[in-house]
Amino acid sequence: MESELIAYLRKRLPPHPRLKLGPGDDAAVLRWAEGEDCVVTVDLLTDQVDFDLEKVDPRRVGRKALAVNLSDLAAMAAVPVAGVVAVALPRRGGMELAVALYEGMLPLAEKHDLAIAGGDTNSWHGPLAISVTLIGRVTERGPLRRSGARIGDRVLVTGSFGGSILGKHLDFDPRVEEALLLAKRYRLHAGIDASDGLSVDLAHLAEESGCGAVIDVEAVPIADDARRLAKQRADGRSPLDHALADGEDFELILAVAADEAERMLAEQPLSVPLTAIGRFVDEAGLWQEDAAGRRSPLAARGFQHVFD
Amino acid sequence: MESELIAYLRKRLPPHPRLKLGPGDDAAVLRWAEGEDCVVTVDLLTDQVDFDLEKVDPRRVGRKALAVNLSDLAAMAAVPVAGVVAVALPRRGGMELAVALYEGMLPLAEKHDLAIAGGDTNSWHGPLAISVTLIGRVTERGPLRRSGARIGDRVLVTGSFGGSILGKHLDFDPRVEEALLLAKRYRLHAGIDASDGLSVDLAHLAEESGCGAVIDVEAVPIADDARRLAKQRADGRSPLDHALADGEDFELILAVAADEAERMLAEQPLSVPLTAIGRFVDEAGLWQEDAAGRRSPLAARGFQHVFD
Repeated sequence: MESELIAYLRKRLPPHPRLKLGPGDDAAVLRWAEGEDCVVTVDLLTDQVDFDLEKVDPRRVGRKALAVNLSDLAAMAAVPVAGVVAVALPRRGGMELAVALYEGMLPLAEKHDLAIAGGDTNSWHGPLAISVTLIGRVTERGPLRRSGARIGDRVLVTGSFGGSILGKHLDFDPRVEEALLLAKRYRLHAGIDASDGLSVDLAHLAEESGCGAVIDVEAVPIADDARRLAKQRADGRSPLDHALADGEDFELILAVAADEAERMLAEQPLSVPLTAIGRFVDEAGLWQEDAAGRRSPLAARGFQHVFD
Repeated sequence: MESELIAYLRKRLPPHPRLKLGPGDDAAVLRWAEGEDCVVTVDLLTDQVDFDLEKVDPRRVGRKALAVNLSDLAAMAAVPVAGVVAVALPRRGGMELAVALYEGMLPLAEKHDLAIAGGDTNSWHGPLAISVTLIGRVTERGPLRRSGARIGDRVLVTGSFGGSILGKHLDFDPRVEEALLLAKRYRLHAGIDASDGLSVDLAHLAEESGCGAVIDVEAVPIADDARRLAKQRADGRSPLDHALADGEDFELILAVAADEAERMLAEQPLSVPLTAIGRFVDEAGLWQEDAAGRRSPLAARGFQHVFD
């Protein structure tokens, strides 16, 4: 599993004077010039895992490959600067495919004032794999880490969750501007983007912060597509199940002190809703509470790459 | 072909205030803090193209994936700072493979004082693909570009060429320290690393500089492995053919003014030989001359990814 590999790397990698934040957060932070630290993130997307090239316009694939990385910069409250793109293209139709991937990326890059700086283009006998690396810069507020949540902090989220497989996983808007606005205007303690699933990503954030989290399941904002998917599938999974576990919502999950959270909720400064869905607690793990305040464990579910 | 895609990107990409050098060189250069510009390069390696996972220890694969990127930083005379690694692993044995790849990378990273900052680890149904992105910084001499060669400059190369498929393509030492030492001590006009093939990479450098190049074929340093390969294959290709076209030598090809080149050749400041193999000329293209000084075209051969 990916988390095992991160644990291995954290143990194995020597400290480095330039590395302010290494493996295990949404992006790494490199010490650069004063006030100009450099944020780096990479995501590799592959056919049949992150998209189905037989069914999807390759421009949407290119757009997604960039968007998931922008979402990682958003999770760090970093300003996008530049990106490089590496692709392994199937031999047949490779040039046309490469152009379509870039055509999907470029409007989103321009929207976020990101320079496409270069890349590496290869052909091979395998299916499409596309890797995007983004470089951003921290603002004067510093990077937003996963490890800053404090006991008593509220869990705030942007937007709504679940059912992204119906389309949002390809066409979502990474919350870059939202993260920068929130980081500028409010004191955020920690943040992560919901890529693998609301519950599992919240659990990651809590774990990195050395605490646990209670989710108020009644408060979780459920996407229309989560309801639609539950109805379509009719497999006993509720819309809430989808919201907690589906993954690829690419919304922000934030840890904010209770009084600051009140202010944010009252002001609602974004064009998407901000919702409080729980709080951070001393007890490790993920929890839900009933009306009487009794806690029971909540499974942290979501997408994980499984290796033999 | 990759060059077509670079041409497309150069036409298509808008200018960006942070982008000092975009697609088409060995790495991109981002305007960062004063005197701390950021150099970025990515290379994606795939099974059966860049290595054969059935025959090669995966540690050598990991090492190569890092080394080819270090070679790109060397070609820019940039100082390595940090890298991120994205892998698409076959499902079976993925975790063990990932660890072996990193174990191959880490000694080389430490040798070059490079921080492994993070990455993305995926499993899929396809063969192994590994993408490494490196971030470096320019020195006070600025980046060494492909476009700075002047007519009359000498073509200098490090080391020897050809037959890398017998082993050097996996185990070569990227010329990072060599490039930094040369850039510090001498006035280099342009540089590239020989990744696709001595002749085709020299042709790239000449083209980017708006000139041509004459190769003194008698002077090309031929690797022992080029002679060995010519003998093994016995297919009519001479050791010189291998030296000119094989690719993956990862030596430096430099453009230096004639008098500076004389000084470098006399001083031989590196632990590998520096050799003059030709000069840059007004006439575009790649050329050889006979004893009487008559020019004939020399084919620029090497490895190119071919797309339908």
